[in-house]
This record gives sequence, structure tokens and C-alpha cells, in this order.
Amino acid sequence: MKSFRKELWFNIPARRGYINITDEVADCVRESEVQEGFVLVNAMHITASVFINDDERGLHQDYDRWLEKLAPHEPVSSYQHNRTGEDNADAHMKRQVMGREVVVAITNGKLDFGPWEQISYGEFDGGRRKRVLVKIIGE
Amino acid sequence: MKSFRKELWFNIPARRGYINITDEVADCVRESEVQEGFVLVNAMHITASVFINDDERGLHQDYDRWLEKLAPHEPVSSYQHNRTGEDNADAHMKRQVMGREVVVAITNGKLDFGPWEQISYGEFDGGRRKRVLVKIIGE
Amino acid sequence: MKSFRKELWFNIPARRGYINITDEVADCVRESEVQEGFVLVNAMHITASVFINDDERGLHQDYDRWLEKLAPHEPVSSYQHNRTGEDNADAHMKRQVMGREVVVAITNGKLDFGPWEQISYGEFDGGRRKRVLVKIIGE
Repeated sequence: MKSFRKELWFNIPARRGYINITDEVADCVRESEVQEGFVLVNAMHITASVFINDDERGLHQDYDRWLEKLAPHEPVSSYQHNRTGEDNADAHMKRQVMGREVVVAITNGKLDFGPWEQISYGEFDGGRRKRVLVKIIGE
Repeated sequence: MKSFRKELWFNIPARRGYINITDEVADCVRESEVQEGFVLVNAMHITASVFINDDERGLHQDYDRWLEKLAPHEPVSSYQHNRTGEDNADAHMKRQVMGREVVVAITNGKLDFGPWEQISYGEFDGGRRKRVLVKIIGE
Repeated sequence: MKSFRKELWFNIPARRGYINITDEVADCVRESEVQEGFVLVNAMHITASVFINDDERGLHQDYDRWLEKLAPHEPVSSYQHNRTGEDNADAHMKRQVMGREVVVAITNGKLDFGPWEQISYGEFDGGRRKRVLVKIIGE
């Protein structure tokens, strides 16, 4: 069994943002030389998500507005968690809706994807460097 | 390490629907001859979900009504994504709540499930043939 | 390839509750002697979640209030599922938001975590003994 590990670093300047990380993950798969296996891609921070969906700008705007409706940032004081000195409780909610991680099949040395599947990093408490873990196992 | 791959195809005639795919996945596990490992089951389309919960008709109706409340289909024009000519932006939201994929343990050659766990395919933009990927690794 | 399996049992006395199970999972990783691999941690019951986020009391209170707003327990009769004699339909909704499972990388024999990642069990229909499955594969 082979294994491979790499951290990807991102710095989203705004509080929230969505970027396509499919190419970086595909590079990891190539570098791992795994032909058949699984790749796990997970946010290493608890106010960010890794998810698979369409990489379409309008859709990302829709997600952003929808998540803000489901778990509004304001009023900051409405969350117990923010009494610890944080202002990011909403980001912990948004991340649960969008998910921490994806597991993708590797087949014939490639990400085994349907026609529109793209891996995105979703940031809900940006303005600093944060990490995504790529871990691959297989043969 | 063994690996196994199969695509399952579905065509839900209505816009939304929920079907039990546990038996198809169990068949894949048997066919793979993997005794100890993981099976990944994921929607290959980005407006559908694979999830594990009870296979109970009333519950599926509850999910459907609840998802429609969290992310209504109408008004179609309220979503930026639908300006691309689509009318399925809500389906991209619903799928995030229900999830893209499940990973299930294989133990002694079988799906290692609790008493009521069943794998369902959730369709949020039906009326055409769509796929689920089953990928197994193990020994 | 090595594999390892263990069930963790919990009994949350209240209807809902959140407990940190990271140490139990880390013990499994040690016991498995897997150095490089994946650990799957999943609720075996369909009204409970395993999720990764901060282990902070205020945050858990926020989750609880938020989930109750997204999928209220009352009125029990508003859910079709509860006509089967159950009163836990809301728990099936809450569990979908928080997720069934997490997959965590194992690197150098340890859970490969970011600074604040902790594994929690979320109970949405407590008052009885329920199980979490830990399954590890790797080398």
C-alpha cells in the first residue's frame, strides 16, 4: 500500500470566499503514483469546508447568501461561542452545512469524477493563512 | 490490496425522489471479494446525494418538505446560478445538506451497519439518467 | 494492509447532547498499530452524528439552538415519520446537518489533525445506549 500526504495553504482575504482546488488535488494524485485508491481532502481548520460541487460563480454567490440566511454572522452576541472573544460562531455552523471533507475515488491514476464535479475550498472566517490536508492511500 | 469500481445508474422521473440502493451496494461488496476495507458511495452529479438513514416513506416525505423549506425551488429567479439558463440552483443547496457521499466499513465481507442504516440515493433534479459511483478498497 | 474495528458505546441521558470522543478514537489508532491510513468514525444509529469541530461548551449550545431552529422537535405531529409511533423525526433532520461520519488521515501512527480539530458524538434522540463504529485501514 502506498500513502501520500500534502498540506495546501490558502489565504482568503475576505471573511468568506470559495476557490477551486481541483488542480492542486489532481497534482497530488499524480505525485502519489497511486493508481487505485482513495484521496481524502479535508479542511484542517474548523471554520472552513472542503466540498464538491459546480465551480460556477453565481452558484458560489447563492451558497454565500443561503449560508448567511441559515446562520447569520450578525448579531455576533447571539452566539454563546462568541463570548470566548471570538466573532466566528456563524462560521462553525456554515462549515457543518458544507462539510469538512470529501473522499474521492482514484481510478487509473486519476480523480474518478462525474462531468461537473469540482473540489472547492470554502472559507467562512478568512483573513489568515489556513490549511487543507490531502491524504492518499492505495496502490 | 484489492479494488473494485462500479457505476449505478438511476432515472428518477420526478424532480425529486429518494430510493434505497443498499442492495446494489451490498452486491458490489460481495462481487469485490473484499473482506476488510472501505466502500465509498458517491453521487457523480452535483444535484443529487447519497446518504445513510432510515428507509421509511414518511421520513423521506419529511426530508423533502424540510429541504424545500431550507432551499425553495421557487422563485427560480432568486438564485444567481439560474441566470446561466438552469433552474436547479435549489438542488445544489439541498444536496449539500444531505451530502455527496458515504464511506462504509466492510467487515467480514459485509457492510458493517447498525440496525437501521440504509443507503439512499436522493435526487433533487431528476428526469434524466444519473450515476452513483461505488468504489471499494481493502483486502 | 492492516485493519481494525471497535464499537464505542454511549448513553446520553438527555434527548440531545455532545461529547468529545477524540481520546477514544486516538486509542483505537494506537491499538491498530497503523502508521499510514484512514480511520472512519461513524454513528451506527440514524439519529446521531459524528462530526469534527471545536470542543467548546458555548459552541455546542449554539449548535443545539441552531439545529432546533432548523428542524424543531415540536410539534411532533408535523412530521410524517412520527405517525409510525416515533417522536424523533427532527433527530433524523438534525443528524443530516451534522453528518453521519468523519474520515481522518492517520500519519506516523497518529490522527492527522489541525490545531483545533476534535471528534464529537452528537446525540439527537438520547436516553438509551447507542454505538459508534471505528474502522481503520492502512499499514
